Amino acid sequence: MIDAALLDEYIERFSNWGRWGDDDQVGTANLITADKVAGAARRVRRGQVVPLGLTLGDGGPQTGANGRFNCMCYAIASGTDHELGRQQFGGKPLPFQMGYADDTVVMHLQSSTHWDSLCHIFHRGRMYNGYPASESTASGSARNGVQHLTGRLVGRGVLLDVPSSKDLDWLEDGYAITVDDLEAAAEFGRVRVASGDIVLLRTGQLARCRVQGWGTYAGGDAPGLSFLTVPWLHEHGIAAVASDTWGVEVRPNQIEGAFQPFHLPALVYMGLSLGEMFDLEALAAACAEDGVYEMLVSASPLPFVGTAGGPPGPVAIR
Amino acid sequence: MIDAALLDEYIERFSNWGRWGDDDQVGTANLITADKVAGAARRVRRGQVVPLGLTLGDGGPQTGANGRFNCMCYAIASGTDHELGRQQFGGKPLPFQMGYADDTVVMHLQSSTHWDSLCHIFHRGRMYNGYPASESTASGSARNGVQHLTGRLVGRGVLLDVPSSKDLDWLEDGYAITVDDLEAAAEFGRVRVASGDIVLLRTGQLARCRVQGWGTYAGGDAPGLSFLTVPWLHEHGIAAVASDTWGVEVRPNQIEGAFQPFHLPALVYMGLSLGEMFDLEALAAACAEDGVYEMLVSASPLPFVGTAGGPPGPVAIR
Amino acid sequence: MIDAALLDEYIERFSNWGRWGDDDQVGTANLITADKVAGAARRVRRGQVVPLGLTLGDGGPQTGANGRFNCMCYAIASGTDHELGRQQFGGKPLPFQMGYADDTVVMHLQSSTHWDSLCHIFHRGRMYNGYPASESTASGSARNGVQHLTGRLVGRGVLLDVPSSKDLDWLEDGYAITVDDLEAAAEFGRVRVASGDIVLLRTGQLARCRVQGWGTYAGGDAPGLSFLTVPWLHEHGIAAVASDTWGVEVRPNQIEGAFQPFHLPALVYMGLSLGEMFDLEALAAACAEDGVYEMLVSASPLPFVGTAGGPPGPVAIR
Amino acid sequence: MIDAALLDEYIERFSNWGRWGDDDQVGTANLITADKVAGAARRVRRGQVVPLGLTLGDGGPQTGANGRFNCMCYAIASGTDHELGRQQFGGKPLPFQMGYADDTVVMHLQSSTHWDSLCHIFHRGRMYNGYPASESTASGSARNGVQHLTGRLVGRGVLLDVPSSKDLDWLEDGYAITVDDLEAAAEFGRVRVASGDIVLLRTGQLARCRVQGWGTYAGGDAPGLSFLTVPWLHEHGIAAVASDTWGVEVRPNQIEGAFQPFHLPALVYMGLSLGEMFDLEALAAACAEDGVYEMLVSASPLPFVGTAGGPPGPVAIR
Repeated sequence: MIDAALLDEYIERFSNWGRWGDDDQVGTANLITADKVAGAARRVRRGQVVPLGLTLGDGGPQTGANGRFNCMCYAIASGTDHELGRQQFGGKPLPFQMGYADDTVVMHLQSSTHWDSLCHIFHRGRMYNGYPASESTASGSARNGVQHLTGRLVGRGVLLDVPSSKDLDWLEDGYAITVDDLEAAAEFGRVRVASGDIVLLRTGQLARCRVQGWGTYAGGDAPGLSFLTVPWLHEHGIAAVASDTWGVEVRPNQIEGAFQPFHLPALVYMGLSLGEMFDLEALAAACAEDGVYEMLVSASPLPFVGTAGGPPGPVAIR
Repeated sequence: MIDAALLDEYIERFSNWGRWGDDDQVGTANLITADKVAGAARRVRRGQVVPLGLTLGDGGPQTGANGRFNCMCYAIASGTDHELGRQQFGGKPLPFQMGYADDTVVMHLQSSTHWDSLCHIFHRGRMYNGYPASESTASGSARNGVQHLTGRLVGRGVLLDVPSSKDLDWLEDGYAITVDDLEAAAEFGRVRVASGDIVLLRTGQLARCRVQGWGTYAGGDAPGLSFLTVPWLHEHGIAAVASDTWGVEVRPNQIEGAFQPFHLPALVYMGLSLGEMFDLEALAAACAEDGVYEMLVSASPLPFVGTAGGPPGPVAIR
Repeated sequence: MIDAALLDEYIERFSNWGRWGDDDQVGTANLITADKVAGAARRVRRGQVVPLGLTLGDGGPQTGANGRFNCMCYAIASGTDHELGRQQFGGKPLPFQMGYADDTVVMHLQSSTHWDSLCHIFHRGRMYNGYPASESTASGSARNGVQHLTGRLVGRGVLLDVPSSKDLDWLEDGYAITVDDLEAAAEFGRVRVASGDIVLLRTGQLARCRVQGWGTYAGGDAPGLSFLTVPWLHEHGIAAVASDTWGVEVRPNQIEGAFQPFHLPALVYMGLSLGEMFDLEALAAACAEDGVYEMLVSASPLPFVGTAGGPPGPVAIR
Repeated sequence: MIDAALLDEYIERFSNWGRWGDDDQVGTANLITADKVAGAARRVRRGQVVPLGLTLGDGGPQTGANGRFNCMCYAIASGTDHELGRQQFGGKPLPFQMGYADDTVVMHLQSSTHWDSLCHIFHRGRMYNGYPASESTASGSARNGVQHLTGRLVGRGVLLDVPSSKDLDWLEDGYAITVDDLEAAAEFGRVRVASGDIVLLRTGQLARCRVQGWGTYAGGDAPGLSFLTVPWLHEHGIAAVASDTWGVEVRPNQIEGAFQPFHLPALVYMGLSLGEMFDLEALAAACAEDGVYEMLVSASPLPFVGTAGGPPGPVAIR
């Protein structure tokens, strides 16, 4: 276990509160400069587009625990209704033998592929950049809502495929990914991690679930970042980390009695965007095939106003 | 008015059913080849990222008509709860003075920025590629669901800013955009429209709503494509058209008694992806500034399983 | 206008905090004793059952303002799907040519016929019986949730049909119902209002809306109780007041700058159950027909856990 | 196992299609006459009100299977927001130190205490009274929606406490309640079952779940009515049967390969209202205490328009 004193130390050493102004609601995503975007785009070679999101529907990982559930899709008009002549729109039958389908979804925003926004986690009554936690109410947050990340999180991505770099199919639950692991994975992919990068961190847990079933994927034990990687992430100017687990960091947690302690220095103090439940399997296969582990990532979240997270329609373009 | 006979003629002449195989669920988005994606990426110059989606929340255009409503966001945990020590997770208080926010949203998928999927519209009991409409049921569609477009709709975008090409702030409701208008707008932007392009069609209606209020933006009259542009779209191999109106095509409609007749040849028979309520205002300003009207568009929709549409987190990268 | 000082006076004079114990979460509904229930049941004569709730669906009064909307019903399985052989349950076709329909609803609990629960309104950081307002969080209220009223609000009802007692079809918006009006309506109905009664207060606004349309029925001006009826309600030991308007009390409000001021002494301090948007039209007709204005009311709310209100399946049995 | 031929025989012998007119949408609930209601009310003795519904929230029996889930309650305004001065209504702070809470719920109508409506089950393309199944669409059913039962299902209730009559705490899963069991339970309660009665059928499964946990209560095996009780229900003119299990009838089912076969003659052909997941534990205790097993039941469902079921706020008044 790691001493809880390190939590306070990291918070003090790595806080970005005020770094991009007192009004900033974006955090480390500010490190993605136009130059970085243009550079990433220029290095696209094959024109291959790889989606990075889990499908949204019945087959997701959620069990209902903690109020999180798989996306529910409700058709409010259907082809069967059309085929049987039972359909109206605006109170009238549709002309010219036309029909339509429409849907409503009920979706918990932290339940599938998503970015945490910077109002997702609080510490001692504050959220990122020092705003009072009470800016976040039952009707949403007036600060750090996910809409402030819209148009961001597009830039150079590097896939750090940790299990492949160790010649494993996946990392086991509870495996804490170290700085050495990160650097070995970068070397494996022949990429240099640079300021403003979006790190796509593959643990392979999703690969394992595809073989063994979801189990406790949502909210349970997982491989993930060690708490001790915080300095490395800060020093390298990482803009965002998106992983294939529910919470990016290793579980069980490394500090006695804590719950997701990495989130405190990373999300609350650094303002580091954390992407969770990204599907990196197809991407890992594509990178393995041609040996290119950098790409243009486009993962701007949907601009829900004031929410604590939100899904992008994420793709890697390579 | 246009003679209804043209509807049948267009359907016959421009149908793509079977063109990409009997199992195709993608339509004209197939025209976006890897070469096109790579080419579009290479031409990114400034590294500027412009989001193209409306914000999701109270302030949207819907009125509740036709079962369509503005996205409702529900916080299930809040900063105020944290600040007052009233928060639990998994039935226990959170340790280390930590707190969190989480949200559920209820969202109608055709009510803000979205792509129609190819099961959105039926004609004579069929949907795109000839699948029976009855593949679409109360629990979603087994064919042509929006998830089949995920990873697509990333490619070269061209902004056709019709009102600016005419030195207008916006087109008036009921204005039918002609082939000549499209070509004049392309010339205005010094772009050549090519096979596989994603056409971003600005009418300016959204600019007008920002001045005058939403009014009947959702479901009412609008400027938009003339029915007579179908041949041009087909001949140029357009992959997708995304516009800043609720329904892409001009309203009132041009065929007596019809409802959104352009959707029939375009969506049902050509399999043309239609993007609706895209916000092109910031993009138009950016293009006007540097005179560059082509870009990389990244607008892969969220992979809802079996729905008739879905939002992307759309951006133009330029 | 009424002097705001009266607000504080009424709060002090009529508060029931502590009256039924420090743990009470029921308020004046405690006044409905078993004797009263038995007495009311014994006086049922015709065996007529009159429902008192608005239908739940598209046709309701809400406009979306204040996050309130008409109940949305989503079929997740339909007869059209069954008829076309497109239906499964549990992943398999149903045997024996069987089919089914099921539905999900999304419903705002204050948007149609409902009882306010005693955590619906706060004053100076407190709710009924002095509990801190902060017992009510984004995940519901640990005190005074509507489930505590379940099994209550069944007892003797008296219909006070104010407009009929004045030979009017309805009262106009802004009409403040006085103590004299209440007594005249009781006399008109030949009923004596007694301790533990559920007062069904008809203003006729709903009758007017059925002629003229909903207009601003939800949240706008309305006839209703004068603030000055608080002493009368307290002295008569009224258990509950259910009216045919959205908020029971007269609008515009009678105290300068206040918003629904009657709710403060009545709901927060007396713990008086307020029923809103009850449909009393059929009941008024039935009472007019046989001249009997007392009845057994059965209006126990659904036991949603921790919500600020909830619908009953209300009926008058007479 | 029971021979499947009996299904067709019962359908033919016990169908009520047309019995109450070609337009009937109510079924056996028609048997509850005004005389019966008045008689039941007159026999109320103690004035005791016993609620019969499960609480609606996190703690319910659903697991998410078959699209059924426990009611989700979302506060859209909270006391914590009020206490911290973070609350607005209609875009403005509330005056006079007032605050409020409001909630939205997302609820699957077959997932807790509810009545099936007569459009819940189809057979061979038809629903009760012969209406085509296709009256039921993705946007609800034009026939036999639950709103037609509103104002019904109020009348004489008899509790048939089968396990208590056998000196058991509960019946085991798979136990098929026979006609003899029903009659023994009536005798045990010293009640005579009569035409128009609402039978409250206790199996004790809920008592067992309170000891052992929900397990597969929702959708799994259960004690319940034998298929062979259909003639008895028909001959006695039972208006409705409400039980404490998810599906009233015994599971596993008694006809090879069938799914809930009792529902076919009972619900589709007789039009028998079936109440599911009623909580009869407190009622059983009350009846045991004073030996009175008849009561006035008030269980009119909420008038959702066109849904396949709906919750009442059910109470027994005794």
